[in-house]
Amino acid sequence: MEQQFTKADWVKWDRFYRANFLNSLSGFKSVSLIGTISENGIPNLAIFSNIVHLGADPALIGFVNRPLAAAPDTIRNIQQTGCYTINHIHEAIYQQAHQTSAKYPEDTDEFLATGLTAQYRAGIKAPFVQESRVQYCLSLKEIIPIQLNNTFFVIGAVEQVFVDDSFIASDGFIDLHKAGSLTSCGLDAYYSAQPLERLAYAKP
Amino acid sequence: MEQQFTKADWVKWDRFYRANFLNSLSGFKSVSLIGTISENGIPNLAIFSNIVHLGADPALIGFVNRPLAAAPDTIRNIQQTGCYTINHIHEAIYQQAHQTSAKYPEDTDEFLATGLTAQYRAGIKAPFVQESRVQYCLSLKEIIPIQLNNTFFVIGAVEQVFVDDSFIASDGFIDLHKAGSLTSCGLDAYYSAQPLERLAYAKP
Repeated sequence: MEQQFTKADWVKWDRFYRANFLNSLSGFKSVSLIGTISENGIPNLAIFSNIVHLGADPALIGFVNRPLAAAPDTIRNIQQTGCYTINHIHEAIYQQAHQTSAKYPEDTDEFLATGLTAQYRAGIKAPFVQESRVQYCLSLKEIIPIQLNNTFFVIGAVEQVFVDDSFIASDGFIDLHKAGSLTSCGLDAYYSAQPLERLAYAKP
Repeated sequence: MEQQFTKADWVKWDRFYRANFLNSLSGFKSVSLIGTISENGIPNLAIFSNIVHLGADPALIGFVNRPLAAAPDTIRNIQQTGCYTINHIHEAIYQQAHQTSAKYPEDTDEFLATGLTAQYRAGIKAPFVQESRVQYCLSLKEIIPIQLNNTFFVIGAVEQVFVDDSFIASDGFIDLHKAGSLTSCGLDAYYSAQPLERLAYAKP
């Protein structure tokens, strides 16, 4: 039966119940691993699910970084080096990917902690996830502080993309179902995606 | 075979090929319909796929609005009324939802144009999509202009949520698979989601 929930309800809820409910609400997410390296050369790997396409020309992608107290390493490394990688997650690595969300001490190398493989490519400082089948790297363009809740909207320009050509359709579309990329919901739920249809460009 | 693509490649591509490729890259998306109404009382309905969870306390959700020249109605209505609804899409309505992306003349009522049903609820100006199984409304908090490409990051506070209680797990998680919510990729591909697993809170 349909229920109505209002702000007056969720401010009274237990914080875990509230977080589960409100994190699910925005829908399925672009869950990926962000790889960075500090100026001292310590790699970092962290799972992010709030990643959005901002535009294709120029090619810009944004993601939400939580407040510094909760998630300091990724954003600090990006500020230090200007460079980061985003790596899709598939069925064989989602458990290790989720494990990167654990509260490790600052400057832990989550590649070592989770068993995922850091892959360095010529001319790119930040590490990729070797196991990932869709990898791209970005240069930092802008960090917008969100005053409302101390999060940050981090915007990067896509610089390079590494993907198997068998996933790319004749019109440029990357078939993420073929790549086995997953989607997530809320804080901890992982899903595979089953194609329904690609629709034609809509006309009035 | 793995291919490497760089900015030097995609600036040379046809714009549709480039748009398909780069729109797919960010991963599966939180595709939903945003319902608004103008100060003159004309409803508007438009599909948006770049929606992100910003925080649970306070409950904030952001979305990317394209440049005004391409997508003027939703953001103008939100500025005029301070209010908008976000409505999940399921298998029975994704074709109509996609149709809202057609370039209708300004001030077209996309509910009428697509056959989706505008649902008005007490005390809430903006229309919901009656067919949608997960609906929520927001009050505008901030519009952040992204100077890099003339898009906007629109942030709202979640005010009310309408969802069937059979979709809500005992810990507050909304089971979007039970609700039949879809995810999208790129400009035109729709997918259902198949649950793999909910993982435990990760600890070092």
